[in-house]
Amino acid sequence: MVKGNLFILSAPSGAGKSSLISALLKHESSRPMQVSVSTTTRNPRPGEENGVHYHFVEKKTFEQQIAENVFYEYAEVFGNYYGTSSAAIDEQLSQGIDVFLDIDWQGAQQVRMKKPDVTTIFIAPPSRKELENRLRGRGQDSDEVIADRMAQAQSECSHYQEFDYIIVNDDFDTALTDLVTIVNNQRLKRSQQTTVYQDLFNDLLAND
Amino acid sequence: MVKGNLFILSAPSGAGKSSLISALLKHESSRPMQVSVSTTTRNPRPGEENGVHYHFVEKKTFEQQIAENVFYEYAEVFGNYYGTSSAAIDEQLSQGIDVFLDIDWQGAQQVRMKKPDVTTIFIAPPSRKELENRLRGRGQDSDEVIADRMAQAQSECSHYQEFDYIIVNDDFDTALTDLVTIVNNQRLKRSQQTTVYQDLFNDLLAND
Repeated sequence: MVKGNLFILSAPSGAGKSSLISALLKHESSRPMQVSVSTTTRNPRPGEENGVHYHFVEKKTFEQQIAENVFYEYAEVFGNYYGTSSAAIDEQLSQGIDVFLDIDWQGAQQVRMKKPDVTTIFIAPPSRKELENRLRGRGQDSDEVIADRMAQAQSECSHYQEFDYIIVNDDFDTALTDLVTIVNNQRLKRSQQTTVYQDLFNDLLAND
Repeated sequence: MVKGNLFILSAPSGAGKSSLISALLKHESSRPMQVSVSTTTRNPRPGEENGVHYHFVEKKTFEQQIAENVFYEYAEVFGNYYGTSSAAIDEQLSQGIDVFLDIDWQGAQQVRMKKPDVTTIFIAPPSRKELENRLRGRGQDSDEVIADRMAQAQSECSHYQEFDYIIVNDDFDTALTDLVTIVNNQRLKRSQQTTVYQDLFNDLLAND
């Protein structure tokens, strides 16, 4: 059975990553694909379901799991832990499911060390001006808050050279086509195709 | 200026390679793509034009070009030389044109040594039975001739593991989509995108 592929999608907020992932899963609905569900110690927000949006756990549990090397990557943000549990992902991959990790450059670095065959994709906004517009959102935040978001976005962008692929999300449909191309391309590589078509090549090369 | 990518397409005869290349060039007509024109010492057949189907040269000229290391790859088949001249290809690549080489596994091996960043694609028939049907063609050839073609096809197939990508040409439209995917995927790689979007990243990362 052919394994699924592991992908990381990173982007500054405002680049449109979540919309692209949703559109990808809809577009390629005939193929098994899943977005990994992270584990976190922060409290659920209204409407968030355990096991759907996050796996919600206690801080002690999370720290024990760190000690047990359970995570492909984890980080502490404002006193809360966020992590990607490896067992669930490996299980999905072995079932032939493509798995997408929605994580930042720091998480990407950690996963790359443990899974060198991961495919990493950076999604960039089309311009600084457009990024700022998107970060301004509904126009209800102070200049200081916007400046802070912009600095964070720039920090994320500064790592674009660490990724295998770069998609610029200017026109959404083009960006989606680019993402579909990268995902489907992985399945055409020799290592995957020789597994899928083992019988065919045995047949083609048989002596009789 | 972003460079074009170099691709090798290899296949046993009967796999439908020529039709796929023609369809690709039609499908992606907005992008600059060209099939490399080989140099040969064999005589032109009726309808073949110099510089279009082949560059036709004298044997002495070809042997001098071999000595001058003019070719990315060459081979002698039934007393005639066939080769891929590097200068024309490098010029096309530097103009941003994707170049396709329609050569066999031996040529692929030679090119790979000189251009390690070449992307190599093997196109396989969907089954041995179908391959044999296609090689029988119009049914006017002897069993011996068919058996000989089949042995040649098997020899080509036996090298499938040396290629970066494998496309199985069962359904033509699917195979075409696969080929388009592989070709477009190359342009989304970081090395290319950082050249195309250098100004964008300078803009995104500017301090002001």
